[in-house]
Amino acid sequence: MYNQHCYEMGTAPSAIRKLFAYGLEKAKEVGKENVYDYSLGNPSIPAPDAVNESILKLIRESDSVKLHGYSMAGGIEAVRKAVSSDLTVRSGHLIRPQNVFMTCGAAPALLTVLHALCLGPDTEVIVVAPYFPEYKTFVLASGCRLVILPPDIPDFQLNMELLEQYINEKTQAIILNSPNNPAGTVYTEPTLDKLARLLYKKECEFGHPIYVISDEPYRELTYDDLYVPYVPAYYTDTIICYSYSKSLSLPGERIGYICVPDVCTDSKELMGAVAGAARIIGHVCAPTLFQQAIAMCNGVRPDLTAYNKNRLRLWHALEEMGYECARPDGAFYLFVHAPGDDSTAFSEYAKTHYNLLIVPGDSFGCPSYFRLSYCVDYDMIERSLPAFKKLIEEYRPGMK
Amino acid sequence: MYNQHCYEMGTAPSAIRKLFAYGLEKAKEVGKENVYDYSLGNPSIPAPDAVNESILKLIRESDSVKLHGYSMAGGIEAVRKAVSSDLTVRSGHLIRPQNVFMTCGAAPALLTVLHALCLGPDTEVIVVAPYFPEYKTFVLASGCRLVILPPDIPDFQLNMELLEQYINEKTQAIILNSPNNPAGTVYTEPTLDKLARLLYKKECEFGHPIYVISDEPYRELTYDDLYVPYVPAYYTDTIICYSYSKSLSLPGERIGYICVPDVCTDSKELMGAVAGAARIIGHVCAPTLFQQAIAMCNGVRPDLTAYNKNRLRLWHALEEMGYECARPDGAFYLFVHAPGDDSTAFSEYAKTHYNLLIVPGDSFGCPSYFRLSYCVDYDMIERSLPAFKKLIEEYRPGMK
Repeated sequence: MYNQHCYEMGTAPSAIRKLFAYGLEKAKEVGKENVYDYSLGNPSIPAPDAVNESILKLIRESDSVKLHGYSMAGGIEAVRKAVSSDLTVRSGHLIRPQNVFMTCGAAPALLTVLHALCLGPDTEVIVVAPYFPEYKTFVLASGCRLVILPPDIPDFQLNMELLEQYINEKTQAIILNSPNNPAGTVYTEPTLDKLARLLYKKECEFGHPIYVISDEPYRELTYDDLYVPYVPAYYTDTIICYSYSKSLSLPGERIGYICVPDVCTDSKELMGAVAGAARIIGHVCAPTLFQQAIAMCNGVRPDLTAYNKNRLRLWHALEEMGYECARPDGAFYLFVHAPGDDSTAFSEYAKTHYNLLIVPGDSFGCPSYFRLSYCVDYDMIERSLPAFKKLIEEYRPGMK
Repeated sequence: MYNQHCYEMGTAPSAIRKLFAYGLEKAKEVGKENVYDYSLGNPSIPAPDAVNESILKLIRESDSVKLHGYSMAGGIEAVRKAVSSDLTVRSGHLIRPQNVFMTCGAAPALLTVLHALCLGPDTEVIVVAPYFPEYKTFVLASGCRLVILPPDIPDFQLNMELLEQYINEKTQAIILNSPNNPAGTVYTEPTLDKLARLLYKKECEFGHPIYVISDEPYRELTYDDLYVPYVPAYYTDTIICYSYSKSLSLPGERIGYICVPDVCTDSKELMGAVAGAARIIGHVCAPTLFQQAIAMCNGVRPDLTAYNKNRLRLWHALEEMGYECARPDGAFYLFVHAPGDDSTAFSEYAKTHYNLLIVPGDSFGCPSYFRLSYCVDYDMIERSLPAFKKLIEEYRPGMK
């Protein structure tokens, strides 16, 4: 007498969580220093000082009833203004407060947009492999049909010829995630330029917009001063979903937003549909203390020194050993080709023989690669390198 | 090319919000002191000092990565333990940490439970009038069929004979809200006892559980030391949805929980379904700073002096003038019979002639009553009383 589908979703442990739990158990047996856990994508650097300073200031100086009170569903007006100013300055394109809808992080932002775009059970949404596994949950929960575009190996850009075949008159949206989880890659300007031409062509052909949903929680996590192109500058029918989880290391606090720029087709109506869709998923408002705190941290950028040190050490060491890695331009993931092309078998071998916990690419829609989250202790990386070396030297397909 | 239903939900202003907006405009014209706004149910007392003190302590003494990091979907283990202990002590019935699932407030808690209970489009959920209008949105969004039980006027308990007629083999749940918004009434022990007998009888008849979803955001807001009966003590197939919005005056911060006690039929499976349903509505975790803050405020109760002063003044004054009020035992609402039985006409007259902003009962499923939210300035109540008096003296049905 309960919903069986919900029960299965709620009780089937994710591959990543299972791996993490295995690591905790194994550590009790062999010692924490002998387990190399690259499973979880949790920020390991603290929030910038400005965040906690803002919270302290708000608590000390604000009227409590106002500080913790309800806000309008789309967010506190001053917060929407701060967020839109920041977006305008960084992108060079005008975003207004009314283009911004504050959410409890990126997950509800994506779900809200998908509900707002769903026209019925035939509505198709394209997800690009490798993809964040929960996209599947969100697309199906919104009532849309899931279409998975195979990965563009080894560059992890977009295979335009293939994409063209996947687009039809039922295509309502395509979800992009750049910098990408799990690949760590960033879509280049030529990629976005080609994508825009293809999508505009298809819009003309089918006579209706095809929206890009740009999921950008890792936007500020790039290295070597790489700039993440502002997608609406290439393709106007773009809706941005953002979270402060990674950029301000606030994943537990659930704060993010949806931005529908004016240039987007039906932008005003879409914002109306977003407000309604938000009610359908139980949104009342984004947490008000954190709305106000992030507005005070406009322009604050994360200190990526620790991530970059990890990234360079791991990437270069693995490449030197003979592993093939996707170019890790952003986020905090290294996506590595599994010798033998079967990452599940390879990951299992790594776990069993070396206590090396790496995530096979199956759940990301890319079974020949595995993911390493390098938001870990630098020392663990150093300690794990001999294991990686022995692995690639001894592993042959079929070994268990 | 957007979801029309979402658009309509997102753009049709609620009667309450429209009234509030009208008041703001009117105040510019006639002065704030001449508008009597009883529209919004927003807490007007500050959060207890312990809340902000807990936040300051957490910021000062915790590791930032842990403090703001992801928690498990159901909540931080220590928080679930604190919440379950508090529930155990107050109810005299054992609740374990695993019976508690932390949520972003009561709205997603209710939605999650409804999704977890929905067996298909025939699943019926009974909502008792007068009811919080958003229940309708939640029941329909979960895919269930909405069944509205008419109000039990003038006591606003439960009409058992009528309820029995509304229950059939498709009945999966009944949502109770006590203390009630908008009626301010509390279900008595005899009411719950009779309800339990009826529901147990129906469970036996149909051979499956009928769940009570007990929505309790106002549980701590009662007067004259009135105790709100613990529903699972009367009827074991009860799921509790709770929010700290009202009890700790934190409506903007989105923190609450679902509790499925062990005694509830299929409680373990239901908790699994709750975890899956939460993913369907984009839940990742409840805001972690506030999870930890409310755990430190275990046992902290609101100071209701201000609400009670408002309540007594307004209630007694209106009764003396001849208005008939539902007994306001809890929450911060007074539910008043509209002379002439048409609260829409009466409210419109009150607004037009006296700038008295009262909410007609239509949207609560009880069109002969209107709601006053007395979480307002005491002085406004005093200033508004002559208007209430003139109103009841001069108003006759048909007047405009």
